[in-house]
Amino acid sequence: MAVNRATLLDVARRAGVSRTTASFVVTGRRDMRISADAEQRVLRAVRELNYRPNLMARGLRTNFTNTVGLVSDTIASEAFAGEVIRGSVATALNHRHLLFIGETEGDTVVEKRVVQDMLDRGVDGFLYAAMYTREARLPAALRAQPVVMLNCLTKDRRTPAVLPDEFEAGRTAARTMLEAGHREGMWVVGEVLPVVYAATQRLAGITEVLSAERLTAAGRVDCLWWPESAYEAIGRLLVAGERPTGLICLNDRVAFGAYQAIAEAGLRIPQDISVVSFDDSDLASWLRPALTSIAIPHFELGRRAVEVLLTSPRPDGVRLIPMPLHRRASVGPPRWTR
Amino acid sequence: MAVNRATLLDVARRAGVSRTTASFVVTGRRDMRISADAEQRVLRAVRELNYRPNLMARGLRTNFTNTVGLVSDTIASEAFAGEVIRGSVATALNHRHLLFIGETEGDTVVEKRVVQDMLDRGVDGFLYAAMYTREARLPAALRAQPVVMLNCLTKDRRTPAVLPDEFEAGRTAARTMLEAGHREGMWVVGEVLPVVYAATQRLAGITEVLSAERLTAAGRVDCLWWPESAYEAIGRLLVAGERPTGLICLNDRVAFGAYQAIAEAGLRIPQDISVVSFDDSDLASWLRPALTSIAIPHFELGRRAVEVLLTSPRPDGVRLIPMPLHRRASVGPPRWTR
Repeated sequence: MAVNRATLLDVARRAGVSRTTASFVVTGRRDMRISADAEQRVLRAVRELNYRPNLMARGLRTNFTNTVGLVSDTIASEAFAGEVIRGSVATALNHRHLLFIGETEGDTVVEKRVVQDMLDRGVDGFLYAAMYTREARLPAALRAQPVVMLNCLTKDRRTPAVLPDEFEAGRTAARTMLEAGHREGMWVVGEVLPVVYAATQRLAGITEVLSAERLTAAGRVDCLWWPESAYEAIGRLLVAGERPTGLICLNDRVAFGAYQAIAEAGLRIPQDISVVSFDDSDLASWLRPALTSIAIPHFELGRRAVEVLLTSPRPDGVRLIPMPLHRRASVGPPRWTR
Repeated sequence: MAVNRATLLDVARRAGVSRTTASFVVTGRRDMRISADAEQRVLRAVRELNYRPNLMARGLRTNFTNTVGLVSDTIASEAFAGEVIRGSVATALNHRHLLFIGETEGDTVVEKRVVQDMLDRGVDGFLYAAMYTREARLPAALRAQPVVMLNCLTKDRRTPAVLPDEFEAGRTAARTMLEAGHREGMWVVGEVLPVVYAATQRLAGITEVLSAERLTAAGRVDCLWWPESAYEAIGRLLVAGERPTGLICLNDRVAFGAYQAIAEAGLRIPQDISVVSFDDSDLASWLRPALTSIAIPHFELGRRAVEVLLTSPRPDGVRLIPMPLHRRASVGPPRWTR
């Protein structure tokens, strides 16, 4: 707004037509007879004056501003957030929408203000995003708005939601180990808190596949999902003389800590211990040997959430996005089969 | 806009005053005499109707919409981007501004469209961001707009810019090694391309501090700034019999590759080789031993850029943000002093 821009009236004057005629040409309406000559003059004036419709003014008339508000609990300092935002922004742009972004840090007062600030600017709809997959309550101010939950879902599963298929990912992890020949010696590494959807779903998927083979995990290591905690816990396990054939690590950071403990014990991956993990962060490809990991499809989550939001009528219910397995070098046959 | 909201006229009617009177109360203007009683009635109506001024309509009148557009070449899949966005969003919110976000992937056609889409929505100003510190040309469409360059700068240094003090960070890295007793055996690891501002500035800072002590780096390793490339290059160096006392790695990913090569050669950090690095990514605290690294202040970059943009009059020139050293366990005295 800082620079004077051509108005529709400027276009009409240059083209020698009425403002109404110019408006009909610019908005592509065909319910008024306009001569081909007048239409050409208007289109030429649009080009010459670099006329662009003012979306703010149009928003006041039509109640659509072609903007979407992304309300996120935390734009975490992780690669994850960046990819979700990339997917959302790129898809919105394809639909000629722009994305407002707001972070609440989980504070309901901030959240209320962010939502209201976006409503004040006439956003057409909302993405309500959690950076870690979880159940969430939709803020009251959003209940009457077009909204899609991104990486989270309401308890009743009724608000449209897009999230990764964590249960199937758990199944994939277990199958990957079974296919390599692992049977009795598999441990699951990382604590499973009931409120962490990714944790409970991944574990449920793992358990289901093992049960179908009449197997259970040899044990569980209840460390935090961070390298240091996993390093210490796996270190203790190995010092105690346990010899897992494989570790199913609940995320890549846990796997990173496991790698460090395994190296320190003088053991090799995958010859002595196989490792499979979840997230497929940058770390997975950087580790030596490179880590087999099941990806969170962040870009796709953002893309699909925007697609659902801008589809009319908006489809209800929960959409589960597949989590692709990236096979690398950390899974091999167990020692006893070699 | 999907839900009907109270208008100023609704407020005026409920309060039994004219629309003009209601407007003066709501906008806090004091140049019209309004009875205390009328003012109270208006404020009560505002609360009861949950009235919020329509910023789109106000934008059309005042030419200010309280929105800022962040135009970025790439919202990289790195922690970096997330923190820059966090700093920008939080600071904008403190000023009651919202942030539009647009990614161009370095494509000038997309860039032009993103800028125009933001102008169509009446943004008050722009942040023009690069995810890797570098020189950049301001797009033509932005030259007449209020703009602050974020993590980049124009060749003539005249557009307001906020970027990390990479030169001083280079000095810090060299000083850290000197203070631990290193003299002749320091290598610089990572290629230095003239177009990569961070690389040339970091190296210049390192060189200046060494020169002041009549020292030079023992050598340079020209690998890519990625773990695998660094792993291979450092591996070759060690196999060839070189024994650096210290490595100054040009980022944490390079340091990660160096750690892997050093471990594989059966050497220890810092007892055999010290390592210092730049970025202070998550990786730095996860490595064993934890990596001494000089942080890119991403949150602060975002915060300062918004502050500069919203300051009136807008200060000119380049602002260098300090890069703090995080001392951890990867730097010790060289072997020959033990």
